[in-house]
Amino acid sequence: MAKSKQGARVAVACAADAHVLQAADAAVKEGIAGFILVGDKDEIARVAAENGIDLTAFEVEHVPDETAACKEAVALVASGRADALMKGSVDTSAVMRAALDKETGMRSGKKLSHIAAFELAGYHKLLYVTDAAINIAPDLEGKKDILANAIGALHNLGIAKPKVALLGAKEKPDEKMPVTMEYAEIAKQHRDDGFFGDNAIIDGPLALDNAVSAESCEIKGINSPVGGDADLLFCPDIEAGNILYKSLAFLAGAKNGGVVIGAKRPIILTSRADSAESKLISIALSVLF
Amino acid sequence: MAKSKQGARVAVACAADAHVLQAADAAVKEGIAGFILVGDKDEIARVAAENGIDLTAFEVEHVPDETAACKEAVALVASGRADALMKGSVDTSAVMRAALDKETGMRSGKKLSHIAAFELAGYHKLLYVTDAAINIAPDLEGKKDILANAIGALHNLGIAKPKVALLGAKEKPDEKMPVTMEYAEIAKQHRDDGFFGDNAIIDGPLALDNAVSAESCEIKGINSPVGGDADLLFCPDIEAGNILYKSLAFLAGAKNGGVVIGAKRPIILTSRADSAESKLISIALSVLF
Repeated sequence: MAKSKQGARVAVACAADAHVLQAADAAVKEGIAGFILVGDKDEIARVAAENGIDLTAFEVEHVPDETAACKEAVALVASGRADALMKGSVDTSAVMRAALDKETGMRSGKKLSHIAAFELAGYHKLLYVTDAAINIAPDLEGKKDILANAIGALHNLGIAKPKVALLGAKEKPDEKMPVTMEYAEIAKQHRDDGFFGDNAIIDGPLALDNAVSAESCEIKGINSPVGGDADLLFCPDIEAGNILYKSLAFLAGAKNGGVVIGAKRPIILTSRADSAESKLISIALSVLF
Repeated sequence: MAKSKQGARVAVACAADAHVLQAADAAVKEGIAGFILVGDKDEIARVAAENGIDLTAFEVEHVPDETAACKEAVALVASGRADALMKGSVDTSAVMRAALDKETGMRSGKKLSHIAAFELAGYHKLLYVTDAAINIAPDLEGKKDILANAIGALHNLGIAKPKVALLGAKEKPDEKMPVTMEYAEIAKQHRDDGFFGDNAIIDGPLALDNAVSAESCEIKGINSPVGGDADLLFCPDIEAGNILYKSLAFLAGAKNGGVVIGAKRPIILTSRADSAESKLISIALSVLF
């Protein structure tokens, strides 16, 4: 995808994980990021050796206890010695507990949310999706927080004025579908009060075909500044977001990555089912955000 | 897709529509179905001539008034002279009002629901999705009704024991995600009481990757009788269903069609944004159901 900022570094909590070390090794070789591997150094060395990975280019911090390793990786990020946090061979909940600790964590005061990136054969640019993994059923204010996180992240990627589609099942506000009324309210607030400043184009409700297909807009007579050219697809809840994410990754053949944003620095929570390429893209995104 | 039952016929309400006539013409030529075109016969003849369609093989009933044409097309189906209803150049609401009329309509006492079929390069068989278009936020009983409709339709297609994935954002029941608890209840009722008889395999909650990727199940240690081999993806609400439908049709390059089921006979409500091929597949499905 892209090269990193000068010397960006990722702190890995409990780094003795084959897939994570493989992705980290690839990221180092492509010049995307450096890594501080926190965990049991003997375990890390063993997993690296088993997978033919040379650890010379890595910094290793020996913290054998899992809870302590999570805390140390978070501390590296909170103190600015690392630029992003990555989960290794440990439960997501343990990493998040350390990251969200009110005293020693990396809270920023903002809501956490997930953003994913997809490279699709059938679309003319990268397509971003939020939120497929963190927020279950956000209310109106929660939706605006998630949007603010995502728009900020896209600005960091150099998209000066991202086009945002608020996705529902149809393109007209309908009281029987409450989310369409919320979307109309968000779009209106943005138009009237510059809710997200002049730095985003937001339209909704839109159906997904309107967001990604200019032809679909033309046939349906929809004149939207986002129509057919969306950068970001905003999903109404975690079910819709997760189903969209999985359909693009597993049925549309997309290359994809995802990152948790809203803390002081990005958090990479790839799962074992993600491909090595997906983990690498997630690392690249975290460095760019 | 498939050839029709002997002489199946589709009644079209307000048939003076170029895309509908093109799809009907293709269906006749492929031997999928015959058509009774209800509407203004001069308008129908004009649109057919403009599109180079020979109406010799079609039956035309001259009913110039829209409301009356909807009512007549429904009456053809309700009386058994036609096997499916198709919307032409008229609002969906007008067709549905006629179809759902308590005296003269084609109600069966069952809930109406939508089922769509997708042929994907990245999946080893046809994949069906319900409900992307009719039921907004069905409760537990509503979900079971929609499932019963879809399973019955798949039986009609010759799938003796369809594998059904109840889709959520994760594969474990979680009280914070109410739909996962409903899914666990439906799956349990089906296991314990044979809710859908012995004629379906139902599992949930599942995430979409578990439903369509055996590899994903293996990596995550999920042992599901549906895993990686789902026939039917059940979506929790209209937003998730519609977003999945559109992602497959517009971003995954699927060939697709969809039909409303649960009335006495299927109803085809294709929209103008659907391709001619999609309309043709919808006609074929309606005849097969």
